[in-house]
Amino acid sequence: MYPHFYKFFTLTLLFACSWVIAQPPRGPLVVSPQVHTDKRITFRYLAPTARQVLLDGGQFGASGVPMTKDSIGIWSVTVGPIKPDIYPYGFKVDGVTVMDPANVNYFPNERFKASLVDVPSEKPALYDLQNVTHGTITYEYYPSVSGTTGRVVVYTPPGYDKSPTKKYPVYYLISGTTDTEETFFKVGHTNLILDNLIAQGKAVPMIVVMPYGNIAARIAEQSPNGTKPADPTIRDAPDAVSRAKAFEDDLLKNLVPYVEKNYRAISSRDSRAIGGFSRGGGQTLRAAFGNMDKFAWVCSYASYLSPAEMDRSFSQIGSNAASTNNQLKLLWLGIGTEDFLYKGTVEFMDYLTTKKVSYKSFTTDGGHTWMNVKKYLTETLPLLFR
Amino acid sequence: MYPHFYKFFTLTLLFACSWVIAQPPRGPLVVSPQVHTDKRITFRYLAPTARQVLLDGGQFGASGVPMTKDSIGIWSVTVGPIKPDIYPYGFKVDGVTVMDPANVNYFPNERFKASLVDVPSEKPALYDLQNVTHGTITYEYYPSVSGTTGRVVVYTPPGYDKSPTKKYPVYYLISGTTDTEETFFKVGHTNLILDNLIAQGKAVPMIVVMPYGNIAARIAEQSPNGTKPADPTIRDAPDAVSRAKAFEDDLLKNLVPYVEKNYRAISSRDSRAIGGFSRGGGQTLRAAFGNMDKFAWVCSYASYLSPAEMDRSFSQIGSNAASTNNQLKLLWLGIGTEDFLYKGTVEFMDYLTTKKVSYKSFTTDGGHTWMNVKKYLTETLPLLFR
Repeated sequence: MYPHFYKFFTLTLLFACSWVIAQPPRGPLVVSPQVHTDKRITFRYLAPTARQVLLDGGQFGASGVPMTKDSIGIWSVTVGPIKPDIYPYGFKVDGVTVMDPANVNYFPNERFKASLVDVPSEKPALYDLQNVTHGTITYEYYPSVSGTTGRVVVYTPPGYDKSPTKKYPVYYLISGTTDTEETFFKVGHTNLILDNLIAQGKAVPMIVVMPYGNIAARIAEQSPNGTKPADPTIRDAPDAVSRAKAFEDDLLKNLVPYVEKNYRAISSRDSRAIGGFSRGGGQTLRAAFGNMDKFAWVCSYASYLSPAEMDRSFSQIGSNAASTNNQLKLLWLGIGTEDFLYKGTVEFMDYLTTKKVSYKSFTTDGGHTWMNVKKYLTETLPLLFR
Repeated sequence: MYPHFYKFFTLTLLFACSWVIAQPPRGPLVVSPQVHTDKRITFRYLAPTARQVLLDGGQFGASGVPMTKDSIGIWSVTVGPIKPDIYPYGFKVDGVTVMDPANVNYFPNERFKASLVDVPSEKPALYDLQNVTHGTITYEYYPSVSGTTGRVVVYTPPGYDKSPTKKYPVYYLISGTTDTEETFFKVGHTNLILDNLIAQGKAVPMIVVMPYGNIAARIAEQSPNGTKPADPTIRDAPDAVSRAKAFEDDLLKNLVPYVEKNYRAISSRDSRAIGGFSRGGGQTLRAAFGNMDKFAWVCSYASYLSPAEMDRSFSQIGSNAASTNNQLKLLWLGIGTEDFLYKGTVEFMDYLTTKKVSYKSFTTDGGHTWMNVKKYLTETLPLLFR
């Protein structure tokens, strides 16, 4: 056994940086994560020379859990049982946070790199790949501001390609700070949730448009010097507001026209919804309130506008609530009680209530997580366009 | 300056594991990579407590380059000028290899996690996003073996959606060991290369189908216990051969029929091409030689079958070369002189020459890299279907 493993050990050391020396890795296979039928999870990480490897799985209660090294340098730990959901995680190797190299499922993000583990439930979850007709996810480019090319991921529902004359309503879905155009797809499983809801007759077949929200970064990346500007740190700072405006301009002047030209989209406000998570929720509220002729369905996932900002920039929403309620078929706010934006969201809801603006709300446990975003999607997708 | 940065420093420590504590990061912005107009690249990595951070950029001659820490804990280094191309890289932080957290561009892979840096050339490269009409990339699911669902990325050319009666030839393009169905898209830029070639009139508009090559892993992942089998370490081992056969069965029994049913694909061998990189090249040769009635265009990128294997499994290819040459409109082999498969590929070419089997070959410098795969794509795409 030993000489066999020793050969693999050596090959692995050689191939651990395979992409550096351009060889394909053929060392010992590290299986990770390994989800057991009883919902315990075994994580493994190959690091023969590391002194300490911890599992960083804070979102499933496994933060800083020590892993144990075996004779060929594979560290492992088994935790759980873990409540079914999709969770980000990583390893902390001698203090350094890494993704799980053996796991193809990743969390697309501008600032951190995490892996994703999916703990399945007894009966299939709404966000699982089920045996139903699937829609398709398309990665698109569209002409955007300042001569740049925008990136967007578009979902078309099951049956779209088979119904060449049928037109569909569109949900513009905006991700949060540091997320990318892939996050609602790869982490939120928006396409799978919709495939399943549509198959169950619980959601209207719709197109979902998921753009990259960080316009300023994209413009900078595609400029000759390729530098990115700092993210604003204060929500209502002039910088943040101007960025939201830039996003809104791109949405209305470039993205919506592109979608309505290239997809069979119904081009009326009653068939346009807008929603988003975190910064995307803020952009949603600004774009909707600032353009009431464009979107009749508005969903904010873990976001809000402060009463001061509402009075400053969108006072007509509250001061003419009757008109607002007449125009908006849905204004929906979702938040978790442990979300750091909970207090702000509750203040926003109070503001709306005081002004007699109609809205639906959904409060759940948990924090500012994509586990909760999946719940918000589950709640809102059946409400749109019906 | 200092107190300001200190606040950011603290926030960053707090938010460095943002996905653990479910807060969005708002610390100092780390811009990385920053490609300068003179083609030098600055890399940065935030690690206030690390003792040593090295740049791992072996594929652009920057292997193990020490980075220097500034006062708030951002390590950086500037290298180059670097020859224009797209390169994988990472950082080695106190001996631990990590991706660049600040970079959204990543190398999809089963075994390692690397980031990608793109050094642009003076005039746009064929693999660059240029101002031409773009095709679309679609992420598809298809019914696969053993009740599993297969993943595949499909490219449809510019104009596909606007020509509802037009049918197109199809290129089945298989990635290598540890790569995924995304690798030809995100690393190979196949879609962009084709967009540009088509715009220049140098390639026939075609559909490209890029499946996930590791059938055994997928079957295992989707099984109740979710364990993955070890990769075979010997190319012609029975295990490797049976895996290739499983892939081939899935290709011919599930994927090709799915594509021909759901896309406007011309269903004839003259309009079916198959190609692949590394293990994908091996699968290509086996699938083509074993099913001469299916594919008329065959491209092997950095792969080969040994003379022994040819004599054992596909002897008719050489023993009836006239028939082979009559049936194959193209047999193309590409290899780099520093590729670890160079010797095997040359032996394979010699075998074909001896048997008087016609083929085209392309030998370049460099090794078993995706930089070379982009060259192989550039050479072969204009040859297909014309």
